[in-house]
Amino acid sequence: MSEDQLIRNYFVPPHSHPMRDVSLGIGDDCAILDIPDNHQLLTSVDTLLESVHFPKNFNPKHLAARAVAVCVSDLAAMGAQARWLTLALSIPENNSQWLADFSQSLHEACAYYEISLVGGDTVKGELSISLTVMGIVETGKALRRDTAQAGDLLYVSGNLGGSAFALSKILQKQEVSTEVLSAYIRPQARLSLGQALIGIANACMDISDGIIIDAERLAKASGLSVDIQLEKLPLHAALASMPQEQAINFATQGDDYELLFSANVAKCDKLVKLATNLDLSLTCIGSLSSDSQHSYTLNNQIYSTKSKGYSHF
Amino acid sequence: MSEDQLIRNYFVPPHSHPMRDVSLGIGDDCAILDIPDNHQLLTSVDTLLESVHFPKNFNPKHLAARAVAVCVSDLAAMGAQARWLTLALSIPENNSQWLADFSQSLHEACAYYEISLVGGDTVKGELSISLTVMGIVETGKALRRDTAQAGDLLYVSGNLGGSAFALSKILQKQEVSTEVLSAYIRPQARLSLGQALIGIANACMDISDGIIIDAERLAKASGLSVDIQLEKLPLHAALASMPQEQAINFATQGDDYELLFSANVAKCDKLVKLATNLDLSLTCIGSLSSDSQHSYTLNNQIYSTKSKGYSHF
Repeated sequence: MSEDQLIRNYFVPPHSHPMRDVSLGIGDDCAILDIPDNHQLLTSVDTLLESVHFPKNFNPKHLAARAVAVCVSDLAAMGAQARWLTLALSIPENNSQWLADFSQSLHEACAYYEISLVGGDTVKGELSISLTVMGIVETGKALRRDTAQAGDLLYVSGNLGGSAFALSKILQKQEVSTEVLSAYIRPQARLSLGQALIGIANACMDISDGIIIDAERLAKASGLSVDIQLEKLPLHAALASMPQEQAINFATQGDDYELLFSANVAKCDKLVKLATNLDLSLTCIGSLSSDSQHSYTLNNQIYSTKSKGYSHF
Repeated sequence: MSEDQLIRNYFVPPHSHPMRDVSLGIGDDCAILDIPDNHQLLTSVDTLLESVHFPKNFNPKHLAARAVAVCVSDLAAMGAQARWLTLALSIPENNSQWLADFSQSLHEACAYYEISLVGGDTVKGELSISLTVMGIVETGKALRRDTAQAGDLLYVSGNLGGSAFALSKILQKQEVSTEVLSAYIRPQARLSLGQALIGIANACMDISDGIIIDAERLAKASGLSVDIQLEKLPLHAALASMPQEQAINFATQGDDYELLFSANVAKCDKLVKLATNLDLSLTCIGSLSSDSQHSYTLNNQIYSTKSKGYSHF
């Protein structure tokens, strides 16, 4: 199969899929895309490599769903609307069943997030997926991580630890419920929440490497320190019956792709309404200060955060 | 070294580099980029994998220069101005000398093409570089490959075969002059030519997989056929003393990243002036017709094009 055929067979999106602001999609040297007036372009790239970011022989349908969610989450974290993505795919062999499953799930995930696949490159090598996502936001409105204010409350969406717990079960080849599994294979990129936080949150990012390492990144970018009460971390239901410290270990390991954001205390009412409207919990887990040290407590005791989350290198 | 440190140490562009239309660069979930009014966004992704797209143990300085040129060439092919790129880098180990050489050359290539590195992801795996480039063009002005007209003359910029000849020497571990080597390691993305062809060319693309396979792609996209006289192919100086058929083999193997474009015969004078202004040869190698068959001749004899160029899979 030539690369042209491979693209036609698997990667040109179905005609039924909406292509928003796409003047020219797959098939030329570049895609041609329309940015509405008074909007900025937001972009981010993520790579998922077999045996590093997902287990060996991982179901290609799960892989595509997870890859899109992980990458779209970066757009959500800045309050952007998702628009376009490009795929750099490296696969060990031309396996048509794998390609059919992967591409079908990829198109489904794109339809779900209303993001259009507009370009790609396919090579023969170890299994790896790099996605570059592009989105738009009204000029000057993007949520950044370096704009938190001292005194802001620190919030996290949804719940934590389900993904790390599911992965540990997968790696130990233990049974796991579909609901828990979905926390790992299909994290929810919080696009609606991110967009709704514009005008409410002072700073925002997504939690990919773990809530502690990521909270410290947000604080550092803003010249602040974090003060987190770990007993407040919203835990995934699967962790409910676990000893508290074990549950917190799962909840700080990352891969949850929830949003971590800071807001002035005066925004509390708006956040309560927003949580109701989106049917999504928004939990205050601490605050930001201009202290020189981060502070972590568990049930009012100082808590040592040796393992802060995922390290890439 | 953490990923944050690796990015700070190697991939944040030097302060001296111009960042055009970059509201926020590396360091947050996404980059924030400004699209001028009345312009469209163009984007393309290319992956270069060790032992597939470049030889094993290839000099990292050469690799970065080549990767940027190959990817920027897709913007040139559509008449775009280069603006931004994101890098997905997979490397087998955290080799600081390799990273220093690669990143220095990457920043130099970005400065040369006036394109800004605005995001990236680095993972540990087999050596592979995926670049997504973004550029802009006045709305509706992009050069496409599906808009050639029957009767158009078919032109190619620069000369062909130097890159394939240099690679054959590298793979045979034979001596090769710096000038020939540079055809492979530092192809010239024809940005100025692409932009100047707006309003002159009816269709345009870059030659990556070989002039025959690429000419047929352009013709097919436009619903036409090609008629190419192979003795007209502009040959790299290194091929001058070679038997003609051997030279043509090199000249049709691809990796030259010259522009292939079609233009109405009435544009001939403009093209002659443009070639002089840019100090770049623009050679008419044939034409496009509504015939049902492609036609290739060499010295007025029908020529069989068995090997049409590079196949990715």
